[in-house]
Amino acid sequence: MRKLIKGIIVTANARGNFRVRPKGALLVEDGVVREVFDRAPDSVESAVTLNYGDALIIPAFMDTHLHAPQYPMAGMGMDLPLLKWLEHYTFRLEGDYADPIYARAVYSILAHDLMLRGTTRVCIFSTIHTDATLILMEELEKAGVEGYVGKVAMDRNCPVQLREPLEKALPEHERWLAESARFKHVSPVITPRFTPSCTDALMEALGKLAQKYSLPVQSHLSENLDECAWVRELCPDCDGYWQTYARWGLFNERTVMAHCVHPDERELEALLQNRVLVAHSADSNTNLASGIAPIRRMLNMGIRVSVSTDVAGGASLSVMDAVTAAIRASKLRTYYSDGREPFLTFGEAFHMATASAAEFFNTKPNFAVGEPLHALVLTDAALPPFPGLSAPERLERMVYRSDERSILARLVRDRVISM
Amino acid sequence: MRKLIKGIIVTANARGNFRVRPKGALLVEDGVVREVFDRAPDSVESAVTLNYGDALIIPAFMDTHLHAPQYPMAGMGMDLPLLKWLEHYTFRLEGDYADPIYARAVYSILAHDLMLRGTTRVCIFSTIHTDATLILMEELEKAGVEGYVGKVAMDRNCPVQLREPLEKALPEHERWLAESARFKHVSPVITPRFTPSCTDALMEALGKLAQKYSLPVQSHLSENLDECAWVRELCPDCDGYWQTYARWGLFNERTVMAHCVHPDERELEALLQNRVLVAHSADSNTNLASGIAPIRRMLNMGIRVSVSTDVAGGASLSVMDAVTAAIRASKLRTYYSDGREPFLTFGEAFHMATASAAEFFNTKPNFAVGEPLHALVLTDAALPPFPGLSAPERLERMVYRSDERSILARLVRDRVISM
Repeated sequence: MRKLIKGIIVTANARGNFRVRPKGALLVEDGVVREVFDRAPDSVESAVTLNYGDALIIPAFMDTHLHAPQYPMAGMGMDLPLLKWLEHYTFRLEGDYADPIYARAVYSILAHDLMLRGTTRVCIFSTIHTDATLILMEELEKAGVEGYVGKVAMDRNCPVQLREPLEKALPEHERWLAESARFKHVSPVITPRFTPSCTDALMEALGKLAQKYSLPVQSHLSENLDECAWVRELCPDCDGYWQTYARWGLFNERTVMAHCVHPDERELEALLQNRVLVAHSADSNTNLASGIAPIRRMLNMGIRVSVSTDVAGGASLSVMDAVTAAIRASKLRTYYSDGREPFLTFGEAFHMATASAAEFFNTKPNFAVGEPLHALVLTDAALPPFPGLSAPERLERMVYRSDERSILARLVRDRVISM
Repeated sequence: MRKLIKGIIVTANARGNFRVRPKGALLVEDGVVREVFDRAPDSVESAVTLNYGDALIIPAFMDTHLHAPQYPMAGMGMDLPLLKWLEHYTFRLEGDYADPIYARAVYSILAHDLMLRGTTRVCIFSTIHTDATLILMEELEKAGVEGYVGKVAMDRNCPVQLREPLEKALPEHERWLAESARFKHVSPVITPRFTPSCTDALMEALGKLAQKYSLPVQSHLSENLDECAWVRELCPDCDGYWQTYARWGLFNERTVMAHCVHPDERELEALLQNRVLVAHSADSNTNLASGIAPIRRMLNMGIRVSVSTDVAGGASLSVMDAVTAAIRASKLRTYYSDGREPFLTFGEAFHMATASAAEFFNTKPNFAVGEPLHALVLTDAALPPFPGLSAPERLERMVYRSDERSILARLVRDRVISM
């Protein structure tokens, strides 16, 4: 099936510059972009026309780091310090996913809510439970959400019901990988929770699995100062936190590392040289009083950075909120640096939400020809009137007001999803 | 008419401690609270029963600082520094309220959106335009939103179309005050925009008006460092920014001052001694890179502090967002003080949103007997299941997820408002 999709097409590049095609159109065939028109033709032979008029067409959101099992607790227990929060809510809750019925109940809501908010690609943590992980993959695929799902690996420093020792973890990973083959657009990602919760033996096995099946990797890096100190204690033979992953082959161009709030110079250099993607979770880093990641520095160096919600360290599932959280946090870095460190522009943060993780998701950004369509149609018809705005101004207003009711439609491959 | 309103009643005191009445009820007569039951009776003679079951009943939100004319631009131009933002958006937009048709269009949406988000009391800036100010008062009253509306006074350092010289401002203020008498629950507040935009002669006249008609006062204080330096230049005879208001009788227990991000010791002492209410607008202070107000310090001293949205410096009209923005900002103060300054608890911030401004609004907090009813009924039925939560946990989850769809009903005096 061929579709001609008309509207105001808005994309941003890595420098945060917007490209607006005020009378643009996308020609899509069987869910793949075939042509991008600066000036839309009236119609195209044998193609259905979808004319969104004055609405904006933008690339759909990518969320490169969040924890599916924690979705019920998003926005709760925020008065607790990290370790108590983990104990009192996270670990207690994650244990519940041994029950496939509870897993199904939560993951079907989560998959719906992701699509509702315009997130069509995720890189997401599950729990250690293989069956619940497969249920999550199934619910995402059903909802049209694509990307990577990780069965969590951890075998130390956590409650016993969340611990999977190597001798069990290995066959369970093999089973998970084999059963995952049935999904079309959702695939596995190797997921050591973080260094403190994985023994060397487990890490080594995960590195081998990643290599054997050529899989991407996700984990946490340098989130807060106590954790960094703990990792130094646990791995005295490593010069930096990043090496605790790198030495097992878990730190490369197919790796996404959440947080990176406190990298030293060598860690920044390692992120750059290994082409690791950073998942910047500003809301989570604020809620847990972890600090503010040096994103301006990373961008200047050429490190790849995406934004992420980090539910439930982050309280909101909306990538729109992740965009504004990143900008807000960067403004406080500006303040605390006496203005020396420029804050993120809206265009830069928007790029980090829609384009910078494209390569990690094995695609090309911004409606590249030959790539599957992932787009949102946005309308500000319900907002108070403000005549004469440019397309980027309209977009900024909608993203800051972060209301999924401004998402008129989600276009994923050949599907048009209104909710 | 008498109503017995049943549900789980949740309030917080100034220390952030919650009081939960799990089987509570309010007896309301002609919109006034007559009794609060810890254990609800089955029914009360000649009273209609509204049974909200497991839903939470909380005091409605108060927003002590926002700019009505800026509502259309909330979440826009966030890449600009304060002065360019004022020039390019704020002043241009505020000029449009000379047109009563535009004013009506925006203010009717704003009043609706306030009630939708559960804000039933406001202290709000209008523009210099008398007619638009009266339209704002009318729309708020129609929607059921109560409180104070201020016609803005400014006669220097602003574009000519937003300047109202004293000889015009005085009769226009008199006309405004006279015509305001027709409103029942919305009344005027004297509103010098801020010291840089008011001559001494205008300030003096405003002080006299406030005294003559016994009116409250709202303005801005110590928002950012450049502004503080500017005020020192403009008023070399004043020891502190606060004195530029105090010397004209505009700094007392009926005054609300927005921001107070950079008070020195004497200014903190003056806020305390004069019993001024601080309107803490964390999102605005973040968006404009102004800094983070020392709220923990203020609370320890006994200064009165409320939260506010400061639309459009703040991007969100929701007091739920103002609550979480205050907590988030305080967490970064905790981080930057190496943990020495404890962050705001959810209970403390909730108190600042629902109770601490009660006296300013001439009422008593937390369903005091004899006071008009302002309540919200909250349901988390649409959120993912998480059994076994306490009422404060449920409340925190709803406030962090900030979605007005969790507001089942707004109870204002005798009205039950579903939207």
